[in-house]
Amino acid sequence: MIAESNAPGSLPGEFELIARYFAPIASAFPGALGLKDDVALLDLTPGHRMAATTDAVVAGVHFLPDDPPELIAKKLVRVNVSDLAAKGAKPLACLLALALPRSTTPAWLDAFAKGLAEDCAAFAMPLVGGDTTATDGPLTLALTAMGEVPEGQVPLRSGARIGDRIFVSGTIGDGALGLDVAKGGLGELAAPLRDHLLRRYRLPEPRIGLGLALRGLIHAAIDVSDGLVADLGHICAASGVGAEIQAAMVPMSDAAQMALARDPTRLAQVLTGGDDYELLFAADPSQSDRIVEAGIAVGVPVTGIGFIVAPPPEGATRVKIGDQVAVETILRFAGYKHF
Amino acid sequence: MIAESNAPGSLPGEFELIARYFAPIASAFPGALGLKDDVALLDLTPGHRMAATTDAVVAGVHFLPDDPPELIAKKLVRVNVSDLAAKGAKPLACLLALALPRSTTPAWLDAFAKGLAEDCAAFAMPLVGGDTTATDGPLTLALTAMGEVPEGQVPLRSGARIGDRIFVSGTIGDGALGLDVAKGGLGELAAPLRDHLLRRYRLPEPRIGLGLALRGLIHAAIDVSDGLVADLGHICAASGVGAEIQAAMVPMSDAAQMALARDPTRLAQVLTGGDDYELLFAADPSQSDRIVEAGIAVGVPVTGIGFIVAPPPEGATRVKIGDQVAVETILRFAGYKHF
Repeated sequence: MIAESNAPGSLPGEFELIARYFAPIASAFPGALGLKDDVALLDLTPGHRMAATTDAVVAGVHFLPDDPPELIAKKLVRVNVSDLAAKGAKPLACLLALALPRSTTPAWLDAFAKGLAEDCAAFAMPLVGGDTTATDGPLTLALTAMGEVPEGQVPLRSGARIGDRIFVSGTIGDGALGLDVAKGGLGELAAPLRDHLLRRYRLPEPRIGLGLALRGLIHAAIDVSDGLVADLGHICAASGVGAEIQAAMVPMSDAAQMALARDPTRLAQVLTGGDDYELLFAADPSQSDRIVEAGIAVGVPVTGIGFIVAPPPEGATRVKIGDQVAVETILRFAGYKHF
Repeated sequence: MIAESNAPGSLPGEFELIARYFAPIASAFPGALGLKDDVALLDLTPGHRMAATTDAVVAGVHFLPDDPPELIAKKLVRVNVSDLAAKGAKPLACLLALALPRSTTPAWLDAFAKGLAEDCAAFAMPLVGGDTTATDGPLTLALTAMGEVPEGQVPLRSGARIGDRIFVSGTIGDGALGLDVAKGGLGELAAPLRDHLLRRYRLPEPRIGLGLALRGLIHAAIDVSDGLVADLGHICAASGVGAEIQAAMVPMSDAAQMALARDPTRLAQVLTGGDDYELLFAADPSQSDRIVEAGIAVGVPVTGIGFIVAPPPEGATRVKIGDQVAVETILRFAGYKHF
């Protein structure tokens, strides 16, 4: 370690910090070893594989430094859990790496740990390990989530087949519109609608229950994080197929429908905006009834929005608005790039 | 995502960046799914548990921004692998979260990926997943390493018993002295000795082979990252015991011995400095011969340095220098605190 920077600040040392804020979240899971050993120990149910994913977020890039700490923690948990949900995985455990600015206060950590604890409990995904360090830069967090899936039942991005029906869970577009609300936009909407969109953006609902209910029923799946069109494109690219969806079939919340009624050009934002964390999947059409029933059983509506087709020459994903094929480039305006 | 910061910089987009620099490191492992799916899929050997650990490093805190990128990658891999080694785990796979400054160059990434690939291959721990994001702050990296251990054979920190002999692998003190060399110190030593110390600091050798060879032979283990005295203290605290070691028995490299010959007060630095990444473990004394033979078999010397004792009232770890018990507080000067 290069810099022996021992700035006292307002925080306790690393060991005490872990003991005070994070060990309580791990206490119920024996394999966490109280966050006091070199590793955590996890077991897989026989006949299962481990699904592992990691996501990093940075203050100023993925959230604002003064966002509520509980929500920062919860969104980080949820974007990772959503990746597990897309593969039909049951969450097992998570590890968290925190790079904390030296100005971090105990009150901030209290609130962050509270949000983390609540969501680890909500998704039955105990915190089992982690690392805490100081940084001279913005708050940076990386969560690794692990789950388990039955062997041979993982709906990979590469599993879509021509003729499959394309489904999506919940409603699409709320994430991107909610981001606009967070930035002070969409003032033309009534407050309850704005609140709905903001909440959907800040606190997505990963579809773990639906992912489990769809085990064995579907061929390919992804969660909608980059945007419906882009994520469908990921499935098409991985599967070597094309897709055709009807814009009119894409399910939207009342708030999103109202936003579109005020400004129809927002359709592109709905279809290409990210951060919805709904499940997008392809399945044999003969499974449609069972899939819709699976959604009803877990309380998450599922909507058929199109079909997997042979790869069209002009690009993988065709979005039809009525009889018109929307020009894909128009739909790409909202694409987010880190670099 | 709050900031739609699309600074072009010199780097490709996230997908291309992953495809160009990181997917090749994952290509040999089917469960990585080419880094193109939402999760990686891993299997455990029946009768085994998964051991998981995560470590984060930040430029300016754990390394200097202009350190060689290969070495930054390798040290990050190695500090994680060392945690697996301490538990006798065989590495399985790793996931990497990178927060890259926008000024990161392709040449830097080339070198970083090369170092990462070499060490993932060296430790048979393929990269199976990750996340890449931009940051306005310093380069920040978090690696999650996963391995497997046979059920019932994990040497936890909490397993030490009174009467156990305490062993350490390799040599102690090179990490802390190497840090001094990195800062321009220890000019009184010959260049080859300084090089040795610097290399030991920059490129530790996690003792995976020894950890595997010690399976079933030892009661408790830890890797020496915080410093010999502090890490022995962690075992004592977790096990509810005390420890007594003889400073004269602690194995040192020629370079460390020469540094001590020039300045005997450096003994405290050797005993309390961190970053050695050797294994420190406790075992029944009747296993001593088998333990030493295990070390010989894998080419890593193992040295008995003391015994586990009943917890002494004045603190867990007693370091004896000749017949004198060194005052523990003297030995703590090198303790590194993040906050």
